[in-house]
Amino acid sequence: MNVTIWNEFRHERQQDKCGEACRKHYPNGIHAYLKEALSAKAPDINFRTASLDEPECGLPDDVINSTDVLLWWGHVAHHEVPDALVQKLRFRILGGMGLIVLHSGHCSKIFGAMMGTSCGLCWREVGEKERVWTVAPGHPIAQGLPESFVVPHTEMYGEPFDIPDDGKVVFMSWYEGGNVFRSGVAFHRDLGKIFYFSPGHETFPIYHDENVQKVILNAIRWATPPAAVNSERRPCPCVKPVEKIYTPNPAM
Amino acid sequence: MNVTIWNEFRHERQQDKCGEACRKHYPNGIHAYLKEALSAKAPDINFRTASLDEPECGLPDDVINSTDVLLWWGHVAHHEVPDALVQKLRFRILGGMGLIVLHSGHCSKIFGAMMGTSCGLCWREVGEKERVWTVAPGHPIAQGLPESFVVPHTEMYGEPFDIPDDGKVVFMSWYEGGNVFRSGVAFHRDLGKIFYFSPGHETFPIYHDENVQKVILNAIRWATPPAAVNSERRPCPCVKPVEKIYTPNPAM
Amino acid sequence: MNVTIWNEFRHERQQDKCGEACRKHYPNGIHAYLKEALSAKAPDINFRTASLDEPECGLPDDVINSTDVLLWWGHVAHHEVPDALVQKLRFRILGGMGLIVLHSGHCSKIFGAMMGTSCGLCWREVGEKERVWTVAPGHPIAQGLPESFVVPHTEMYGEPFDIPDDGKVVFMSWYEGGNVFRSGVAFHRDLGKIFYFSPGHETFPIYHDENVQKVILNAIRWATPPAAVNSERRPCPCVKPVEKIYTPNPAM
Amino acid sequence: MNVTIWNEFRHERQQDKCGEACRKHYPNGIHAYLKEALSAKAPDINFRTASLDEPECGLPDDVINSTDVLLWWGHVAHHEVPDALVQKLRFRILGGMGLIVLHSGHCSKIFGAMMGTSCGLCWREVGEKERVWTVAPGHPIAQGLPESFVVPHTEMYGEPFDIPDDGKVVFMSWYEGGNVFRSGVAFHRDLGKIFYFSPGHETFPIYHDENVQKVILNAIRWATPPAAVNSERRPCPCVKPVEKIYTPNPAM
Repeated sequence: MNVTIWNEFRHERQQDKCGEACRKHYPNGIHAYLKEALSAKAPDINFRTASLDEPECGLPDDVINSTDVLLWWGHVAHHEVPDALVQKLRFRILGGMGLIVLHSGHCSKIFGAMMGTSCGLCWREVGEKERVWTVAPGHPIAQGLPESFVVPHTEMYGEPFDIPDDGKVVFMSWYEGGNVFRSGVAFHRDLGKIFYFSPGHETFPIYHDENVQKVILNAIRWATPPAAVNSERRPCPCVKPVEKIYTPNPAM
Repeated sequence: MNVTIWNEFRHERQQDKCGEACRKHYPNGIHAYLKEALSAKAPDINFRTASLDEPECGLPDDVINSTDVLLWWGHVAHHEVPDALVQKLRFRILGGMGLIVLHSGHCSKIFGAMMGTSCGLCWREVGEKERVWTVAPGHPIAQGLPESFVVPHTEMYGEPFDIPDDGKVVFMSWYEGGNVFRSGVAFHRDLGKIFYFSPGHETFPIYHDENVQKVILNAIRWATPPAAVNSERRPCPCVKPVEKIYTPNPAM
Repeated sequence: MNVTIWNEFRHERQQDKCGEACRKHYPNGIHAYLKEALSAKAPDINFRTASLDEPECGLPDDVINSTDVLLWWGHVAHHEVPDALVQKLRFRILGGMGLIVLHSGHCSKIFGAMMGTSCGLCWREVGEKERVWTVAPGHPIAQGLPESFVVPHTEMYGEPFDIPDDGKVVFMSWYEGGNVFRSGVAFHRDLGKIFYFSPGHETFPIYHDENVQKVILNAIRWATPPAAVNSERRPCPCVKPVEKIYTPNPAM
Repeated sequence: MNVTIWNEFRHERQQDKCGEACRKHYPNGIHAYLKEALSAKAPDINFRTASLDEPECGLPDDVINSTDVLLWWGHVAHHEVPDALVQKLRFRILGGMGLIVLHSGHCSKIFGAMMGTSCGLCWREVGEKERVWTVAPGHPIAQGLPESFVVPHTEMYGEPFDIPDDGKVVFMSWYEGGNVFRSGVAFHRDLGKIFYFSPGHETFPIYHDENVQKVILNAIRWATPPAAVNSERRPCPCVKPVEKIYTPNPAM
């Protein structure tokens, strides 16, 4: 089983205060950190990383076609991801590949392409406290999580969150500054499963949190396709009648 | 109130047997026919037409920005609709413009962009009988429709139909050749309402049918935005706290 | 158009501190207060009241059968509402009567009967601050409401809230004590519309709030049946074939 | 793992032509037949039977409390199932017990209690042909099923089927007499999973069909609770604040 952790990997390489802050928590990038942390908890999973500035955005066909679940972290360079790559990923997801969209990935092309909506929200970056509530305790992604847990310093993502109505809300967040948010939402798109999870940020050590890692790992297991993924666009086959047609069209 | 009926308008101009068959029922195109037929029933609505081979695909900004509900019929030239136009339409729909997708429009770029799924189905063109069932008799689009009605000769569109789970199924179809289909499905995407309706075809006089016209007109009324449409992408505003933050981030 | 405001009307008549606190804000009961406040804003609606200790719980057949929208407030005496009355209300709702369930009505028999779930939640009564967020700004019940509004002192109702997944979340609440809640949720059940709204309590003057009244009035208008309500249980009719059966059962 | 197959078991004991017809296919009752057929395919599951005329309707507390998945077949005696038993089952389902509702069980008290709607439909018993389509090929209940399969002689169940909108439609049926039906629909209610499946009838050997048995067995596996079931009604606990309240209510 192959999980590919895709990271834009720009913030972590910036030569400024923001870049320094990122490198403090994620010296080799969020993707590298997540790979290490999750690998330690799930030795049965083969974690790989990919990032925007690698050839073919780190996602050549052989990588896409051998990925069972894709994690996506992006922020300032969503527009640099080629449309053709987005369409390729879209059809692999429809064919069964899982997609876990992290934090600012709500504005990525791939998430927008799967949702149809704008995926808009409001935000604030003052490092306030966030409390994440488990609102669907029976959902596989909620297994082992407490009633609620705290992220001490976070970027606030607030309602209204413009997503379709068929999302299953698994987590909701409370922020000290007065906002609320559907922070963990699960979707089905044809054979693929998609989970959006907002906690996680480049300058806070949120991905170091045990509960956050547990959510992501649960989501990976939930989104794993039960059968081989087919990346081809679902055909629109022309089919023969399966019952006898007694009143044929005289013109045909 | 402005309704724009967009038609690819290629089949009706073909110099072959298919073109002849189309012109028999729709001498000036499906769009022109629908405009005439619906105008007679809804004199309060200003119907306009647009087609692919007009400048800017018939949809320059002033037309888009004054359209309350857009009808979409396309088939062989979906790929010729520019991506930039699709994105413009997408954000107008999210801002409240209604979208009625007709028949082979299930494979249009705009429907796919709003749904996320492949919108795939299976099909057969032998002119068999279709029976359309009203399965949500309380829905506004079903008002005035009988329990079921017959389309004598139709192109079959069959399950599995790959659409998201938040669609409200208003009509389901039975085909003599043994298939079934969710033939009328209603969606919300942000402020916009979308209705897909499968009956309708270029070489059968299905849009001449009284019940089919009633469904389309009901759908137009249902999808009409209650307030002014804003075509801008929903912003992701940065907002101030609305409650006092007592535990500020020491690093900020 | 007739709206019946049903109130358990027990707290307000208690001869104790709680009763006193209730009477301070609702001297003649929550139902009487709401009737007066809403009548002033909607002179086209005929508001009526009913309560548990009236004959037939205030809901004899002629009242039920002339009610277009029913408001329900109950708390300590849910179990005293007869099952037969609940079944009568249930079938009138399925036939089109609107139902607005207020605050502690989440545990009423009628709400449980319409939802199937336990409708459980967690709660706390320390009079903390609540902030109500509009999360579906395009929904009819949200019209005219601000991005968020404050209820200065409230009873907290918190997640997990055990309701079915087809509820459209219109409002979500933030509480100073750290909880979140889906505080306004809209459902369809056959021809009937149901709205649950949590803000509102017997000892806080929450129903005096302009925004709270606006939500309730919007919900009444949204839930008003477009056509005459039929209280009868939907029949399971035996029907004749509408297409010819060519392969009959030899045994029949 | 314990699966309890509950059958009303009245038709099969009637001393008339209908009873004879039933006994031809189900000499010891539908429940006994299903137990035998499914046991042969799933030796890891402990199948038990229960019926209406046994003491406590065959469902004393120790049986209920050790059942992981309950199958329900009833028809003419739905009203004889005591309300208190229905409430007990309801809370066990909400606590995680799976429920598979078969054929005429759509009108059972327990299905109505879980859905809220009337669960009405239209029907016809002329033994016509039914074709069952797999419309959600990715769903666990659809695994191993063909694109469509035929039930040669069936009782027709037709739309409109009055169920809530959160049902995932896994199968849809075509009938020779012209009707269509959502014949396999999956629901979540709190921790419990519910599947309704219409094919199956007392006088046709539909439960002998390999595909029908496969659907039922898939549904049992899908509905099996991952953890121990708790039959208690979900409490509405009073909880302490998890965040400090800085603006307490002066009156408290």
